[in-house]
Amino acid sequence: MTEKTTKKRTTEEKRTDENVIYIGRKPPMSYVLAVVTQFNGNGSKEVILKARGKSISTAVDTAEIVRNRFITNAKIKDIIISTESITNEEGRDSNVSSIEISLTTIKKTWDIKQ
Amino acid sequence: MTEKTTKKRTTEEKRTDENVIYIGRKPPMSYVLAVVTQFNGNGSKEVILKARGKSISTAVDTAEIVRNRFITNAKIKDIIISTESITNEEGRDSNVSSIEISLTTIKKTWDIKQ
Repeated sequence: MTEKTTKKRTTEEKRTDENVIYIGRKPPMSYVLAVVTQFNGNGSKEVILKARGKSISTAVDTAEIVRNRFITNAKIKDIIISTESITNEEGRDSNVSSIEISLTTIKKTWDIKQ
Repeated sequence: MTEKTTKKRTTEEKRTDENVIYIGRKPPMSYVLAVVTQFNGNGSKEVILKARGKSISTAVDTAEIVRNRFITNAKIKDIIISTESITNEEGRDSNVSSIEISLTTIKKTWDIKQ
């Protein structure tokens, strides 16, 4: 109930938790690039997409585009939905739905190269 | 790829599959009422919310409002996201993300009344 959110929150949290991608109002492809970079560039085994409110559908779009077109061995490990309480600038509390989609890549067998 | 959708689809499917609620562009409370009626009036043990595109966030809102405010023993059994191929009126194929949220009530123990 006393949780405060600022406009800078997304950027701040992205720095502290590397494999979490915060989905906002940009087109899905912006976030697809971020997810692909996280998997391929940074070698993450798991990437978590987080979104609130109207951005929830963009999070689902992002996950679907990633696993259908870019990282075909990526699976959806878990989807959690919840409600967050937000205090807006006028000091009023309001509830917003949120989603967390965990994408994970299957462990590859390296038998072929050995 | 050859799947065809018409504007009447939502209404048609609602008739054939009673415990499925199709989420569209109305406010979440419209669908909350439908879900609560399904659980309490029709005695369903499981209700499935289906939504596509921008309505996905409304489906999440609906599920959250139902279990937080109306049917507190309802749990989220499963969440599935997928991609559907739609042929629009100009005959072009396009992909749209979809979500299915299964809500279920825990079996009550009637010990108290006996």
